[in-house]
Amino acid sequence: MTIKLYELCGANEELVFSPHCWKTRMSLAHKGLDFDSVPLPFTKVATIENGDSRRVPVIRDGETVVEDSLEIAKYLDAQYPDTPRLLEGAAADAMTNLLINWAQTQVHPVVVKMCLMDIYNALAPEDQVFFRATREKVFGMSLEDFASKMASTPEDLAKVLVPLELTLKKQPFICGETPMFADYAVFGALQWLRITKGDTALPKEGEVSNWFNRLLDVYDGMARNTVIAA
Amino acid sequence: MTIKLYELCGANEELVFSPHCWKTRMSLAHKGLDFDSVPLPFTKVATIENGDSRRVPVIRDGETVVEDSLEIAKYLDAQYPDTPRLLEGAAADAMTNLLINWAQTQVHPVVVKMCLMDIYNALAPEDQVFFRATREKVFGMSLEDFASKMASTPEDLAKVLVPLELTLKKQPFICGETPMFADYAVFGALQWLRITKGDTALPKEGEVSNWFNRLLDVYDGMARNTVIAA
Repeated sequence: MTIKLYELCGANEELVFSPHCWKTRMSLAHKGLDFDSVPLPFTKVATIENGDSRRVPVIRDGETVVEDSLEIAKYLDAQYPDTPRLLEGAAADAMTNLLINWAQTQVHPVVVKMCLMDIYNALAPEDQVFFRATREKVFGMSLEDFASKMASTPEDLAKVLVPLELTLKKQPFICGETPMFADYAVFGALQWLRITKGDTALPKEGEVSNWFNRLLDVYDGMARNTVIAA
Repeated sequence: MTIKLYELCGANEELVFSPHCWKTRMSLAHKGLDFDSVPLPFTKVATIENGDSRRVPVIRDGETVVEDSLEIAKYLDAQYPDTPRLLEGAAADAMTNLLINWAQTQVHPVVVKMCLMDIYNALAPEDQVFFRATREKVFGMSLEDFASKMASTPEDLAKVLVPLELTLKKQPFICGETPMFADYAVFGALQWLRITKGDTALPKEGEVSNWFNRLLDVYDGMARNTVIAA
């Protein structure tokens, strides 16, 4: 029996635009599985398949109803093991590259704007000269101007870490049950802040803070026991 | 022979703060490999191991010198196959969760601020009423005010996609040589924009644009040939 895909549409039923439904459309096509689209407008979504607060996408496959694009991907991988997998080990190295670039281009700039002068103050005089010259060339202004005009706050840091905070609500490490390189790629940014500034200023109750503390503790506390700037 | 780790330090040699060096410190500890730290200030980094433009971390392991924390991780995985891996397949599903949350919390908000009124305009009248009521409750202002005050630009979109742009310079898909669910998780956001607005406004020469076009073409062009809002 062909899989039914309940998805959101506009006034024109053929206009199916939901990003989450597109994840499932692509997932079904990826597996070469035929599906019948059941386009529904916003006001009809909640009651799909006798639900009361459904969110699209929802699929029905025979007797099975599954909601949420990731749950659907997991279901399809399990139910159709002979089709190309949607979630799989072999992709980990490739995704690590994206997470490294995420840390580098999104987290690092926030961190450096929190601890620029702390880094500078931790250096020996000749290195301060080097650091000032190279960074001021990039920034186009003095270190002091950059630090005051571009300052990031702990709230900025928390904001950029939202994807990680959400993820760690469901798993202890970025790489799952144990940390791997992608964990360290993000950890490095926060350890940089902790060492130069003395503290990360992460919200104490947050999952990122808990994860960071776990990584400070592993390997006999190597990372926790390192020297911190006075 | 113990591995040498060249890393950045402050005026105090024990103050080793570089985020990139911490990636490698954690990587070495992860593998249970002993290392001797060689702390160097900024002005001594370029010439490590007879280099002229080195960047830390650099390791020497016997006759082998490796630079860059990811390259070091790859080297260590290859050289010490009996130690816990730093990059591995089993982590892919866990990383997919972070990439889904990245798309959802970083890319989606930019996209929705580009196409909010386009979405609204594509709906049937009763769904417009529903959409307006539910969204205005969340936004705390009218759709029109939100769309004008909070508008995102194509530059905002390109900025949030920088990590992906960099990643796709080195691999065709987020998941490597072929697309998997994490690709679709990000694709969904851009397809949403394309369908409601008619175009993603991605920089035409960019790698994200090339990747998006590849995904529009796969599966007999299913995603390219879908109906687009007038």
